Amino acid sequence: MKILIFNAGSSSLKFGVFDMAISDSRVFKGEFEHFKNGKCLLHYRVGGEEGEEKERGESLASVEDAIRRVPEILKEFGYDVFDAIGHRVAHGGEKFRDATLLDHNVLQYIESCTSLAPLHNPANLKAIMISSTFWPDIPQVAVFDTAFHHTIPDFAYTYAVPKEWRDKGLRRYGFHGTSHKYVGLRVAQVLNRSITELQIISCHLGNGASICAINHGFSIDTSMGMTPLEGLVMGTRSGDVDPGMFSYLARELGLSTEVVEKQLYSNSGLKALAGSHDFREIESKAAKGDLDAQLAINVCVYRLRKYIGAYTAAMGGVDALVFTGGIGENSAFMRRRICSKFDFLGLYLDEDKNQAVKLKSFDAPQIQSFDSRVKVIVTQTCEQLMIAQEVQYLLKQQKSQLKTKKWHIPVAVSARHVHLSQEAVEALFGKGHQLKKMRSLSQTEGWAAEETVEVIGPKGSFKTVRVLGPTRKQTQIEVSKTDTFTLGVEAPVRPSGKLENTPIIKLRGTVGAIESDGLIIAARHIHMSPEDAAKMGLKDGDYVDVKLGDGERGVSFSNTLIRAKQGYVTEMHIDTDEANAAGIAFRTEGELVMNERQGNADIVTKKNMRLHSLRT
Amino acid sequence: MKILIFNAGSSSLKFGVFDMAISDSRVFKGEFEHFKNGKCLLHYRVGGEEGEEKERGESLASVEDAIRRVPEILKEFGYDVFDAIGHRVAHGGEKFRDATLLDHNVLQYIESCTSLAPLHNPANLKAIMISSTFWPDIPQVAVFDTAFHHTIPDFAYTYAVPKEWRDKGLRRYGFHGTSHKYVGLRVAQVLNRSITELQIISCHLGNGASICAINHGFSIDTSMGMTPLEGLVMGTRSGDVDPGMFSYLARELGLSTEVVEKQLYSNSGLKALAGSHDFREIESKAAKGDLDAQLAINVCVYRLRKYIGAYTAAMGGVDALVFTGGIGENSAFMRRRICSKFDFLGLYLDEDKNQAVKLKSFDAPQIQSFDSRVKVIVTQTCEQLMIAQEVQYLLKQQKSQLKTKKWHIPVAVSARHVHLSQEAVEALFGKGHQLKKMRSLSQTEGWAAEETVEVIGPKGSFKTVRVLGPTRKQTQIEVSKTDTFTLGVEAPVRPSGKLENTPIIKLRGTVGAIESDGLIIAARHIHMSPEDAAKMGLKDGDYVDVKLGDGERGVSFSNTLIRAKQGYVTEMHIDTDEANAAGIAFRTEGELVMNERQGNADIVTKKNMRLHSLRT
Repeated sequence: MKILIFNAGSSSLKFGVFDMAISDSRVFKGEFEHFKNGKCLLHYRVGGEEGEEKERGESLASVEDAIRRVPEILKEFGYDVFDAIGHRVAHGGEKFRDATLLDHNVLQYIESCTSLAPLHNPANLKAIMISSTFWPDIPQVAVFDTAFHHTIPDFAYTYAVPKEWRDKGLRRYGFHGTSHKYVGLRVAQVLNRSITELQIISCHLGNGASICAINHGFSIDTSMGMTPLEGLVMGTRSGDVDPGMFSYLARELGLSTEVVEKQLYSNSGLKALAGSHDFREIESKAAKGDLDAQLAINVCVYRLRKYIGAYTAAMGGVDALVFTGGIGENSAFMRRRICSKFDFLGLYLDEDKNQAVKLKSFDAPQIQSFDSRVKVIVTQTCEQLMIAQEVQYLLKQQKSQLKTKKWHIPVAVSARHVHLSQEAVEALFGKGHQLKKMRSLSQTEGWAAEETVEVIGPKGSFKTVRVLGPTRKQTQIEVSKTDTFTLGVEAPVRPSGKLENTPIIKLRGTVGAIESDGLIIAARHIHMSPEDAAKMGLKDGDYVDVKLGDGERGVSFSNTLIRAKQGYVTEMHIDTDEANAAGIAFRTEGELVMNERQGNADIVTKKNMRLHSLRT
Repeated sequence: MKILIFNAGSSSLKFGVFDMAISDSRVFKGEFEHFKNGKCLLHYRVGGEEGEEKERGESLASVEDAIRRVPEILKEFGYDVFDAIGHRVAHGGEKFRDATLLDHNVLQYIESCTSLAPLHNPANLKAIMISSTFWPDIPQVAVFDTAFHHTIPDFAYTYAVPKEWRDKGLRRYGFHGTSHKYVGLRVAQVLNRSITELQIISCHLGNGASICAINHGFSIDTSMGMTPLEGLVMGTRSGDVDPGMFSYLARELGLSTEVVEKQLYSNSGLKALAGSHDFREIESKAAKGDLDAQLAINVCVYRLRKYIGAYTAAMGGVDALVFTGGIGENSAFMRRRICSKFDFLGLYLDEDKNQAVKLKSFDAPQIQSFDSRVKVIVTQTCEQLMIAQEVQYLLKQQKSQLKTKKWHIPVAVSARHVHLSQEAVEALFGKGHQLKKMRSLSQTEGWAAEETVEVIGPKGSFKTVRVLGPTRKQTQIEVSKTDTFTLGVEAPVRPSGKLENTPIIKLRGTVGAIESDGLIIAARHIHMSPEDAAKMGLKDGDYVDVKLGDGERGVSFSNTLIRAKQGYVTEMHIDTDEANAAGIAFRTEGELVMNERQGNADIVTKKNMRLHSLRT
């Protein structure tokens, strides 16, 4: 499959041709830049990562002219037949969580997002319009810079501002998503671990810069917000400022919001502090004693260090710190400064390895010292490759049955319940006590016991919580999010059995009480018989998106875990909050797990996180 | 000494009478609030912390009326003679680093800061005007909410915005300084440690909320910025938002900067998310399943957790986390949520202790578990007591000689140099080599050796760096900040001998090379003979402010460490960057330490951090 990629910016146009059948897949790379007086520069490279970089002048006045010139350039080097065209699109708003085939409606929606990214979306739209006019019969796919961040939870994407503003789309979206996703997957590959086992902080430090917390494969926070202005100090952008600044500047300097914003985008950041946004120049000025350049570096490093600390707190730990983007890839000096004083995390750089980094192609060297608990990795970001893979995946998926065939599976609503160890059973109900089976559950290996316990939190308690049998090695208490507020504890959303660092809670039985950790909000999951899994093309550990409920209260649950095992009956398990959200009715009195089919779940898209295989 | 304290807000007036001679020093406490239809409520308490809280109605229409009523109220309870009046002032701009006696110029400056804190400074000014009319002969002192934060380094207070805006005062100032300072000192007292040994994160969580990193006694960062709008989610204030929001709201909703700011101050924060800013109400709604209330709590907790992570990174560690303010003092539920998932810092709460907190008076219970490395402490903030102490300190200082008498001490400029261990000497210069004395230094215990070494950093190196004798236990390399940029390393500013976690650097001598840690930027300090120290009323370990140089390049060096020891000659040591900053000329070629008197240092104020003794 041959895929042409467009990445149109406000002052440059990058493009590339990928042949997905070969391992070094980018067969042509081009970039138009430095538009001035009707002329510009074209950098290009033919023949993969090892090819020679060349440069020539072109008589083109604008990015738009450059887009129109692309077909001729490609023809000149023998590329004129493509299976698909992929476009990087900066802002996909709330709607697009994945790569999307472009049609009239999608285009309109992208246009409606322009006010959220006024410098970026218009250029992307131009590339789409021109290329779909030129290649009307080839599928055109939009890959959104915001899509990877759609897993950011509400408490991290919500600004504490009036509801009518939030209703107008005011929330954190995040950008550089394609880069952070690529980098996260590359790190997992380098460490030979599944990305779902890792806590990664990705630092994309280019002229635009952002940092992302990738928790077990999912973006849970990123420094750019509703717009690409928030967050780190960038080449010409300010990043975080005091919101009280705007009216102060209006009062004191008579500046309009428009003027302030323009300054924050174009004349702030490193440029405002050091008089330049060329990082090599700033480094060399700083070494010569230029105080402004030193301050610029220090401000930049300090903010990054704070974000790294913040995201470690957000994830409750960090396994790997990754540097990418021009500064991240090339400045050993910056990596050194950013990584210092993180002894408290067990993060130690090996300065020789750090200095030795000279990235080629898909290299991703580790530069931590031998005794560092946190891995530190440097790698080029390959957004275009990631876009090409997303395009390929989407088109393959479209051809396969998965797109058109919907699988209906039963849904069971789990009320709060506990699993007990035999030791706990005896402490709660008396020496030698055995749980008594009350009735079977749909999953044949488990059953509801006659016994109930009182679950006692620091704030509130539940009197009769059903015990499930048989006994397990560990005591495990499963509640809903609302239950945690009643109890007054904070519990993580976890798959069953993952009980590290969960809150301690008191359980009281008929004869005694115990304190036990192991309180979780059970992550929604789908039990699946191996036969059903095979039929649907899924395997144990996959994640899928599920549509649940109908009409007004219909809900899409993304990232639902597949648990395929011999003996399982195919059934989705959700908790009472999720059932409420989806408008599914269920009885609660005395019943623990509802076996009745309360709804039908349609698996509509396979989550592609675990399906991509990166080429290196 | 009897001191009357005013803390005037936009919608309430707090005041108190302190008798500094007795241990439970607040003898009267009053607060006017709930102004409505020409009436308001007065809460008051007579007789110290154990006195009974009472309440009565008053016919007063405004805070201004209430200020005028204060003398009568105080007279009613037998208080009409005061030695001084202290005023809390929200914003002291860049100028005021300490409590300041009010006069016409100071008043004018405070007025000029009004645009930085438009809701707060006008009320403070009204209290000052009215009380100085009523008590014209009593000293009136302003204690600034911003003063404690004057030690925040430039890289933390600088926003990456155009220079002309920064020149107009746009920078981080921080607020709640009096509270954070009190809390920091109280923690040190509870832990029976000097505050200069501790890394503390102070969470002031009231209707206004901020968090502060107190590193070895000094505020190095805080979440409120130029205005009290930045930072945490507060009762009605948004805290951090995307700066791109302003023009988006202008374009999409036609909102002016003024309207947006008003909404961000008054209709955002918890109120916007949960429909209420009464935290008890929000907690109880959340427990009943109200999704908005749950989200509000989660957003609030999440942002706090991120700041705690960020400030731990900023300090390179944390010893104690402190909660104060209405929510911090009263909500065990919030403390629990905020402290969870910090296992990676070795922070564990003892939930029983957390639940058991019922603060009385100056209590400051520890609520971490027995195995927690980080201490967690809850305490009431006593801003008024802190203000009273600052007032008392200022007035005492004014009476003492320290104010009028200036001490002139010689200043020496230290160029980069190294101290070596004997082991290092032999590795660099050959087996059995002994350093040769070239000439004496002013401090009689040290001398310049004939030997020099090459100091080699990852980025650059210095060929001939002087070695100082005699040999020490540890190798120690002392350079200036500019030198660290040339070398390409980041080094901490440290007193001599504190070498933990400093960068590793290569040293090359005539016969060999070694890798050594122990690279520091020497913290400026004053060597002092015990006699001189006694004469100036100082002791080893004190910090002083020093004025250096004259005219345009005159510089005030705050927080300079006193090292008093038998055998020391009184002399201030600064590095080349500091000398440059103060416009002091010095020879560099071949000379290591200049013994000539290059400048005179005037000790003008004693830093009061270590001098206050808190009463409990």
